[in-house]
Amino acid sequence: MADENRLIDDRDLRFLLFEHLHAERLCALPHFADHSQQTFELYLAEAARLARQVVFQSYKPMDEQAAYFKDGRVHTHPLMRDLYPQIVELGMLTAARPYAVDGQQLPLCVYSMAASYLMAANLSAFGYCMLTTGAAHLIESFGSDALRRDYMQPMYGGQWTGTMALTEPDAGSSLGDLRTRARPAGGHYLIDGSKVFISGGDNTLSENIVHLALARIEGAAPGVKGISLFVVPKRRLQDDALVDNDVAAAGTFHKLGWRGIPSIALNFGEGGDCHGYLVGEPGRGLHYMFQMMNEARINIGLHGVATASVAYQQALLYARSRPQGRRLGAGADAPQVPIIEHADVRRMLLRQKTIVEGGLALVAVTARYADLAEHAANPAERERAQALLDLLTPITKSYPAEKGFEANTLAVQVHGGYGYTSEYLPEAWLRDQKLNSIHEGTTGIQSLDLLGRKVFRSAGATLGPLLEEIAHAIEQAREAGLGDLADALASARDGLETTSTALLTKAASDPDLALSHSADYLELASTVVVGWQWLAMATLAGRALDTGCEAHDEPFYRGKLQAARYYAATELPRVAALAALCQSCETSYHAMPSEWF
Amino acid sequence: MADENRLIDDRDLRFLLFEHLHAERLCALPHFADHSQQTFELYLAEAARLARQVVFQSYKPMDEQAAYFKDGRVHTHPLMRDLYPQIVELGMLTAARPYAVDGQQLPLCVYSMAASYLMAANLSAFGYCMLTTGAAHLIESFGSDALRRDYMQPMYGGQWTGTMALTEPDAGSSLGDLRTRARPAGGHYLIDGSKVFISGGDNTLSENIVHLALARIEGAAPGVKGISLFVVPKRRLQDDALVDNDVAAAGTFHKLGWRGIPSIALNFGEGGDCHGYLVGEPGRGLHYMFQMMNEARINIGLHGVATASVAYQQALLYARSRPQGRRLGAGADAPQVPIIEHADVRRMLLRQKTIVEGGLALVAVTARYADLAEHAANPAERERAQALLDLLTPITKSYPAEKGFEANTLAVQVHGGYGYTSEYLPEAWLRDQKLNSIHEGTTGIQSLDLLGRKVFRSAGATLGPLLEEIAHAIEQAREAGLGDLADALASARDGLETTSTALLTKAASDPDLALSHSADYLELASTVVVGWQWLAMATLAGRALDTGCEAHDEPFYRGKLQAARYYAATELPRVAALAALCQSCETSYHAMPSEWF
Repeated sequence: MADENRLIDDRDLRFLLFEHLHAERLCALPHFADHSQQTFELYLAEAARLARQVVFQSYKPMDEQAAYFKDGRVHTHPLMRDLYPQIVELGMLTAARPYAVDGQQLPLCVYSMAASYLMAANLSAFGYCMLTTGAAHLIESFGSDALRRDYMQPMYGGQWTGTMALTEPDAGSSLGDLRTRARPAGGHYLIDGSKVFISGGDNTLSENIVHLALARIEGAAPGVKGISLFVVPKRRLQDDALVDNDVAAAGTFHKLGWRGIPSIALNFGEGGDCHGYLVGEPGRGLHYMFQMMNEARINIGLHGVATASVAYQQALLYARSRPQGRRLGAGADAPQVPIIEHADVRRMLLRQKTIVEGGLALVAVTARYADLAEHAANPAERERAQALLDLLTPITKSYPAEKGFEANTLAVQVHGGYGYTSEYLPEAWLRDQKLNSIHEGTTGIQSLDLLGRKVFRSAGATLGPLLEEIAHAIEQAREAGLGDLADALASARDGLETTSTALLTKAASDPDLALSHSADYLELASTVVVGWQWLAMATLAGRALDTGCEAHDEPFYRGKLQAARYYAATELPRVAALAALCQSCETSYHAMPSEWF
Repeated sequence: MADENRLIDDRDLRFLLFEHLHAERLCALPHFADHSQQTFELYLAEAARLARQVVFQSYKPMDEQAAYFKDGRVHTHPLMRDLYPQIVELGMLTAARPYAVDGQQLPLCVYSMAASYLMAANLSAFGYCMLTTGAAHLIESFGSDALRRDYMQPMYGGQWTGTMALTEPDAGSSLGDLRTRARPAGGHYLIDGSKVFISGGDNTLSENIVHLALARIEGAAPGVKGISLFVVPKRRLQDDALVDNDVAAAGTFHKLGWRGIPSIALNFGEGGDCHGYLVGEPGRGLHYMFQMMNEARINIGLHGVATASVAYQQALLYARSRPQGRRLGAGADAPQVPIIEHADVRRMLLRQKTIVEGGLALVAVTARYADLAEHAANPAERERAQALLDLLTPITKSYPAEKGFEANTLAVQVHGGYGYTSEYLPEAWLRDQKLNSIHEGTTGIQSLDLLGRKVFRSAGATLGPLLEEIAHAIEQAREAGLGDLADALASARDGLETTSTALLTKAASDPDLALSHSADYLELASTVVVGWQWLAMATLAGRALDTGCEAHDEPFYRGKLQAARYYAATELPRVAALAALCQSCETSYHAMPSEWF
């Protein structure tokens, strides 16, 4: 495989799944009993092949010629007509779904890693698949048999695409304020309202588009309790035929990135004939959406990692091949050296490596908890996995987005002046990456979720399993002779624990002030959690080197250890400052009135 | 003035110039004797007016319709034909130049602050002016009378534009490797070679373009010593007429930002008839360029601040007007509040404020040292100012670019989903900002300049004046009752001092390892230097509040104090971790071989 198309480091991905997380052990569970490491590897290889040989080639043309709005339709890039069936053929719509809906019952952690190749290859091309499977999954979980047959099946089958239609012009982060109305009309509802930022909300790719839309049934309570979930198709099934359902694309938003899958403004029911079909019970719309949120947020985390990864791989390739400058003290006659010889370039690459591989480990471990939360053998295991999943989700959603953006920035920087041009791709990945800190709940929302909803509401109890896992990793590292790295994480872990306690105490008297440090707390917790993953990876690498790994694997393990050392030296020390900031309940932004700006 | 067009905070700018830096005292120096605070204020007001009422309106159209290459010419946006004469009319080409070249002898610190309005309004529109005045300044300083008359005068007069033509495909950061050749041909030279990334290298704006190009005279020494500086016009003066000079635009690079002023690939002498005129002495080309570098790098710093500032002002406006969500505990029936009511949004705004206002102070104080280095009354003062200027320049070049990018990212984030679209401007400013960490020497190059060229070569002596200035600010803050803020900076200052000493010691035995921490050192030094500026500003604000300022000024001073507190709480603590990293001479990136990645 040519280096140009590396996208994701295969060796690292297999290290994560089979040395670190032992995904193959999931096959002992009934749900995954038909699988083996071999079937996992096969699926990963197929995904990698399609991503590298086909999907990646479409990225630049799709970025350059954005999908566009004309004559009431959004015209998808013509390449998508070839790509989408191949992604469907690979089983990406249903591979992680159960046999009952013609899925393959792959663990989410394996499926996610396979998906990472396709995300790295072309985020917006794969976006149509993600949205469709997410929307179909909502019907699968909460919809009636009729809705499953009429709408879920053609989506999972790849004939129709799907969307999540939540946001409205005045209801973004505050979904409780949405205004789209649903009026009962005998069996169905008449939908009336406007949605914005609906990714894939119109396209020329599929014969029908099924919107999973939030709306308020007439007379419903204000706020989130009055919100219900509806299937609102572009064309509805009526007497076994598809008829127009009064859903109009009103235009696209011109976006910084994700040019292949535009955000659409949609109008439902301008002609008074937009039928919606209630999913599940009235008033449970946001509740249903939240049940799907963990999965959606893990996906966003994976976007972040994949987009940082492909840029890192290209920066690495560039740094190894671009001659510029000389070693200290070399004469002007000496040949120029590849820029990877310069320490500061290596620093930028090593930083990208820690973000990318740390982020991938974070996503993979979170996805494995999602697998265990649903399929582990006994209730106690499931409950513990669920607690870890809930706690890790806001971190998994936001760390790759925030730090991934930094990694993407460094990939541009490694390319120098060329990095600022579209002759090279890093600037495009930088543009794509920025969305990940915004959609599916901004980083600010994630921080409130972590501190407010997860830590405060459980009075800190939800931290218990995580702290145990971290303690276990520290112990293992000590046994493997990595005492210095273990100490660094132990100190950071203490910072997390004391900060959590201090903020909990403060929350009892002044919840507003305690919550004002949510972003700092998220950063602190993320640094510790990713540090936990790096320590675990370092322990495995150290053991492999100690017991004599194969020669061709040695550079990989040495690189892992070096990256873990870099992380311990540069990132973990930040915890102390963040802990002090949170624990002091510093008030500068809490107390800053608008007029002082 | 409508808030929409604030660009730069007038109150802050006047605070910097007349309360903090006392630019009016420069008028006691002979060079500035014709000026007064009144003439300064007048110039600033004129620049602000033009920027807000005219130039800013051109930004979005020029970003949307990039200049383009067609039929061998780069077609500049038609709006530039109206804009450029107005920028010239304002005197922006010569206001800081001496009377001898029809300038106004304004101090650089005043001129820079005036320029900041225009940069914030439209960076690439103002770019034509910056490049032209920079190129003309090179001729002014080092060129013959004939070159001054024939080429400098029409540039300063606004008829012709200018460029800096340094970079070649294989000689970017490593200028010593450039290959463009100059062959003596009786009075002039015949130039032959290719340049890339030449901003404004071709345009349909002016009747002629004068390239200040680096080339190697046949037989010259290899490396930087063999490089000479030439005037290479697009059309040359021959018998009082302009004739074609065999300079061909070969195409543009499509850039992430700066769409109004594209980067051009140029070919000199494809037809064997490209005349170049030597500026100064042979072999001194890079030396001349470096003499201009301080000014160019201060300009880049100002780009960074201006681009962060305009985005911050827009984010502030948006946060005050966009309703979304409610206060903790408010019912669903309560009206939504403007997002500035949410602590995390205030955090993002306060962070932008500290970067923007701290950055502006940094640029202004550096520009004032440039004024003093050239025009102070006695040699000792000039020498001291020069030492401070030299030391601060790499920080002034890079801090606004790096932290400004973070500020621009936050401005996008404050706008939520809208921030990711071109309906709003923050994404465009984010794109513009990214170049500032790359051109005129990347951040990596700046870090080597600071640690290697400035600190190591002077054996640390050059730090002396800076540490004295910081000590003075600490003392003043203590006297003003700001002991806690003073302590925080004192501790950070100690971190800078001990780290400098430790790295100097290490450099004696292993310069390569010591230099490998240049980026960390730059970040450490930048944090301390900007902290120094914040402490000085806090002291002034504290005093103003203590002595009873006018009521309408109170929010401004309170905001200054609050931002200084935020900086001390969030940024200064990072110094300890950076100091430990540098002092330990941690080797992870120094020692990472290419094959471990």
